Amino acid sequence: MEEFSVTPYEVEGSVDYDKLIAKFGVERISEALRKRLEKLAGSSNFMIDRGIFFADRDLGWLLDRYEAGEKFYVYTGIAPSGRMTLGHLVPFLMAKWLQEKFGAKVIIEIPDEEKALARSGVEFDDAHRLAYEDAMDIAALGFDEKNTKLFINTDYAKTLYTNAVRIAKHITFSMVKDAFGFRNETNVGTIFYTSMQAVPAMLGSLERGRNVPCLIPLGIDQDVHFRIARDVLPKLGYYKPAILHSKFLPGLDGRPKMSSSDPKNTIYLSDNEEAVRKKVNMAITGQQSTAELQKKLGGDPEKCAVCKYYTFLFEPDDAKLERILEMERDGSILAGEHKKDLAKRINEFLSDHVSKKKRLEGKMDRFMLVD
Amino acid sequence: MEEFSVTPYEVEGSVDYDKLIAKFGVERISEALRKRLEKLAGSSNFMIDRGIFFADRDLGWLLDRYEAGEKFYVYTGIAPSGRMTLGHLVPFLMAKWLQEKFGAKVIIEIPDEEKALARSGVEFDDAHRLAYEDAMDIAALGFDEKNTKLFINTDYAKTLYTNAVRIAKHITFSMVKDAFGFRNETNVGTIFYTSMQAVPAMLGSLERGRNVPCLIPLGIDQDVHFRIARDVLPKLGYYKPAILHSKFLPGLDGRPKMSSSDPKNTIYLSDNEEAVRKKVNMAITGQQSTAELQKKLGGDPEKCAVCKYYTFLFEPDDAKLERILEMERDGSILAGEHKKDLAKRINEFLSDHVSKKKRLEGKMDRFMLVD
Repeated sequence: MEEFSVTPYEVEGSVDYDKLIAKFGVERISEALRKRLEKLAGSSNFMIDRGIFFADRDLGWLLDRYEAGEKFYVYTGIAPSGRMTLGHLVPFLMAKWLQEKFGAKVIIEIPDEEKALARSGVEFDDAHRLAYEDAMDIAALGFDEKNTKLFINTDYAKTLYTNAVRIAKHITFSMVKDAFGFRNETNVGTIFYTSMQAVPAMLGSLERGRNVPCLIPLGIDQDVHFRIARDVLPKLGYYKPAILHSKFLPGLDGRPKMSSSDPKNTIYLSDNEEAVRKKVNMAITGQQSTAELQKKLGGDPEKCAVCKYYTFLFEPDDAKLERILEMERDGSILAGEHKKDLAKRINEFLSDHVSKKKRLEGKMDRFMLVD
Repeated sequence: MEEFSVTPYEVEGSVDYDKLIAKFGVERISEALRKRLEKLAGSSNFMIDRGIFFADRDLGWLLDRYEAGEKFYVYTGIAPSGRMTLGHLVPFLMAKWLQEKFGAKVIIEIPDEEKALARSGVEFDDAHRLAYEDAMDIAALGFDEKNTKLFINTDYAKTLYTNAVRIAKHITFSMVKDAFGFRNETNVGTIFYTSMQAVPAMLGSLERGRNVPCLIPLGIDQDVHFRIARDVLPKLGYYKPAILHSKFLPGLDGRPKMSSSDPKNTIYLSDNEEAVRKKVNMAITGQQSTAELQKKLGGDPEKCAVCKYYTFLFEPDDAKLERILEMERDGSILAGEHKKDLAKRINEFLSDHVSKKKRLEGKMDRFMLVD
């Protein structure tokens, strides 16, 4: 009996990341590896230091290649929702950091067909339209336009399908049945899809005409796609992609993964100030049931969504973060103020994001790959 | 126990076309329907009159639509071999006739990925290269360049994949497992593929922005793909394609289907005169074991590959064909002469074909759809 479940299609229950490491067969990022990455980057990354990115596959190998003079590129992506959430930011912010520190090219897949294939209520035309909205949100995070490419799968399907079939030849129904829990009633598009998601892990090599290492920062629920890709790509002569796994940003109600289909407990990048204030005000904290008790007994930052949001995204400074967590712990900040401060931070970020996004209007061609 | 098997992947045993009609649930072309088609076409088609095209799905419906003012288009295709055979000509010659008589637009799919997915010895790059060779052979049959489009799947995959996923959403593994005999060990590209083959049956409607009837002449081994397509397309708002089923041109050894992987018993469009003479000279006939016996007892045209080639392709004139069959039957022609005459006919056709193909060099852009 499992008390939680993590698949690309659903995250349920209280996720035990230690158990996931064992179950998926990934490595916890060691202290030595963390330091090595920091040294090569020239600075630390708070998401790695804090264990938000907590596991990897072959990151050490990737750094070996880097030290041997082989630059890597970064690949990540998002299933299009048209309403990106704060939770979606995590892998993109890591990709951006890797670009800044290692000069890595970044390629981003927005698989508009995936959700429409996997969910009965999602139409292809809607998913396609929403994908452009997401592309703008991603580009607005500040990627280097000279070194970043985004594509929406059906706009780039000539390139993707032509290479996906080469990968698909080495993937049987048994393999995806076991890996994804597919059944005989699963549709053949969903069965094929993982081949499409694998292609960008070879595109960088195809482009250069020689093997180029690829690093994929992702939420650990996506790991299964690349377990398969890592089996197949060497058969076609390509490097296995290296992976950097993140935990999930929790929902405002403390559930393990913020979900774009749960509006009340989710902050969208498109939320206005008032919506953010209202939602954050309903967030779960680790505080006692009354202000009096909280002042006396203090709270538990581990149970506090507000603290998590600071930790994941909104307080990169470790000393400042420690002060916030300490105030929660010792009862010197009450829930109301705690939430008000976070809402302010989020709104500052979103206001900046909206204006950056606005500046990209009519300029997305610079980023988009289209066949 | 079945004594023969007909699938898109293999034709084995002695094919009983009557049994196939029952098994596949298609209709034998009735005399009334044959006459109706002849009347609307303004002339007869010897391949229909002789039962080479012997069965259909919804041909009557298609003619209803035609009489109601809805022009149909024709879709057919070929898995690329790079070495087209006489057997491959049958559906293309029907497509050409339909174009001439009904002004039908013809679209031709050359699925370069299919064989590479389905056969372990076939590489994608080779299949892709060979596909161009086939495209030239097809165009050289004399299609109207203003009303005919060919595409090689991976060159047109943006269009195809974008629409294939919409179809794929309605096709489960169970469906293709039952229809094609796929197993858990079948690769996911092959499992998905039938969705790609279905797309051209809706492309004509997509192009016009309204439903356009589609007629697909094909070897009956391909029917299974369109049993599925006919289930799915109405769910997306499209007409079911109508189908016209042909028998197979036998091999020179009398086996039920000429196969491009059996060079001795196959005439390729690229064969030179001497190769044709030599191969035809080894063909099976329905004649007696000695010239003396043949003169005395006569032979059986039904067992004679030479007679079949006249019937399928090389003697459109019914009276002349009857004379040829009669000479076989009554012993007045001996195998050597019979074969020499056929080889001459084939060589005349091929010599003309080669020069038509040559004239297309550098001009294939007129025919090709590329994303």
